[in-house]
Order: sequence, then C-alpha cells, then structure tokens
Amino acid sequence: MSYETPTAAERAFYDAFVKRDLDAMRQVWSDAPTVACVHPGGGLLLGPDAIMQSWAEIFEGAIAPRIQVKALHVRADVEVAWHLVEEHIRSSDQARAATVISTNVYQRDAGGWRMHLHHASLPLVETQPEPETRHRPLH
Amino acid sequence: MSYETPTAAERAFYDAFVKRDLDAMRQVWSDAPTVACVHPGGGLLLGPDAIMQSWAEIFEGAIAPRIQVKALHVRADVEVAWHLVEEHIRSSDQARAATVISTNVYQRDAGGWRMHLHHASLPLVETQPEPETRHRPLH
Repeated sequence: MSYETPTAAERAFYDAFVKRDLDAMRQVWSDAPTVACVHPGGGLLLGPDAIMQSWAEIFEGAIAPRIQVKALHVRADVEVAWHLVEEHIRSSDQARAATVISTNVYQRDAGGWRMHLHHASLPLVETQPEPETRHRPLH
Repeated sequence: MSYETPTAAERAFYDAFVKRDLDAMRQVWSDAPTVACVHPGGGLLLGPDAIMQSWAEIFEGAIAPRIQVKALHVRADVEVAWHLVEEHIRSSDQARAATVISTNVYQRDAGGWRMHLHHASLPLVETQPEPETRHRPLH
C-alpha cells in the first residue's frame, strides 16, 4: 500500500501512531533497507525490521496518546518530500504532555508515497526561558 | 553564494562548523524564512536570524571541534535533497566526544544548493549497550 500524496502518508502515520496499529504503521513505511527512524532521545534505527520492532515496543502496553500535529513546513519535490512538524503529544489520561519536533521524509515509489525517515527529538531545555527579571534577586 | 551539489553544500557546512566561521556558515544556509535548525537537545529555531544567532553562540569561545562525518543515506531529487549523517564530534583537546545523528535537507534555488534544515540529535541512551556479561557480578 502507498499513498497519493505525502500528506496522505503523514495522516496515515499519525493515525497508526494514535491507534497503536502496527499493521497500519508498517504500511506507511517504505520497505527499502535505507529507511531510518530516530525516536526522541533514541539512537538511530536503520531498516524496516529495527523500525517496526521499535514501534511494537512503543505500542505494547502504552496508553493511547492524543497527538495534535502542526505542520511547520511542507515541501514536495518530484519523488522526495519533507515535512517539519510539531507533535503535541498527550497521554489519554492527560497525565503527561510533550512537544516533539519531527522531520518526516516521504519518497515516491511505484505509484505512491511512503515514509522514509522519521527523525523526532524532544528539547532538553526550554527554548523560550522565562524573562530574566523572574530570576533576578529582589534586593 | 550557493553550491553546485547538495554534497558540496554539506562539505561547506561542516567546514564552516569546524572552522567556527560564521560568514561561511551564513553562506551555506538558504535565506528563506522557512529554514529550520534543531541543535542536539535544543528547541526548534526558525528563520535565518535565529539560526545564525545560535551558531554565533556555539562558535563563541568554543574549542574548535574535530568532526568526522559519515553519510548514511543521501538522496537528491530535482530541487530537494536530504542526507542522513552521523557526526563523530571530538573537542580538539580530545576531552569530549559525541556521536550526533543529523538530518540535513538542501534545496536548489537560483543556480545552486543551500541548506534548508539541520536537525541534529544526541541519543540519551546507548543503542548498543555493552554485552551484559560485562556488568554481571563475578561471584
């Protein structure tokens, strides 16, 4: 299975993520040996087997997340497209929330688009610190 | 200035990084408002001003690094190219070392290629831990 546009592939990717649907996740990804995935704080995973195993571990026993995806930049060429997105992820019990920055690369193969790279990272530091005055001693 | 190939732009990027040459770094990047940069552990920087300010801060007072770049995947389309690389970074006094995973996206504009995205991340956990026997008690 493949998708008519990179955006359709991306929608399927996050849909599979939210539903923790491993089969749907497998369909979104290209089966090329060069596919690559970096989860937040994780190392580099190369190839479909390592990537699908990681999704199986993520889905296993996890509480279904709610994910709001904000596309910051979208660019499609003839056979390659890249999306820069912010993922606002919240556990369904609302206990945890995080904003993940992801670069998603899609490539067109026989008739359609599939995911080739998902590179996600979680900032360790706030990019917009509180105003300096908040930390200034009062005396 | 722009570059004849994405690989030439990438070479110029890491050359500017190693030499801490802010002017050269500015030349590598597209001046489009949609350029984006994520440093390891950092938040999302959007636009040339925020990105160049970050490089100025990185270069300021830093010891010149040694960087060995290993391209893991390279794909060029008509106007968009993406590279997945491992950066083996070592401070010149050899005191610190890190392996950073980066996705670099280049785009072709009037006559040449320039960097549009640098998304770098540092694994928080070892992906290939030492063999378990190394940690096993001897008794």
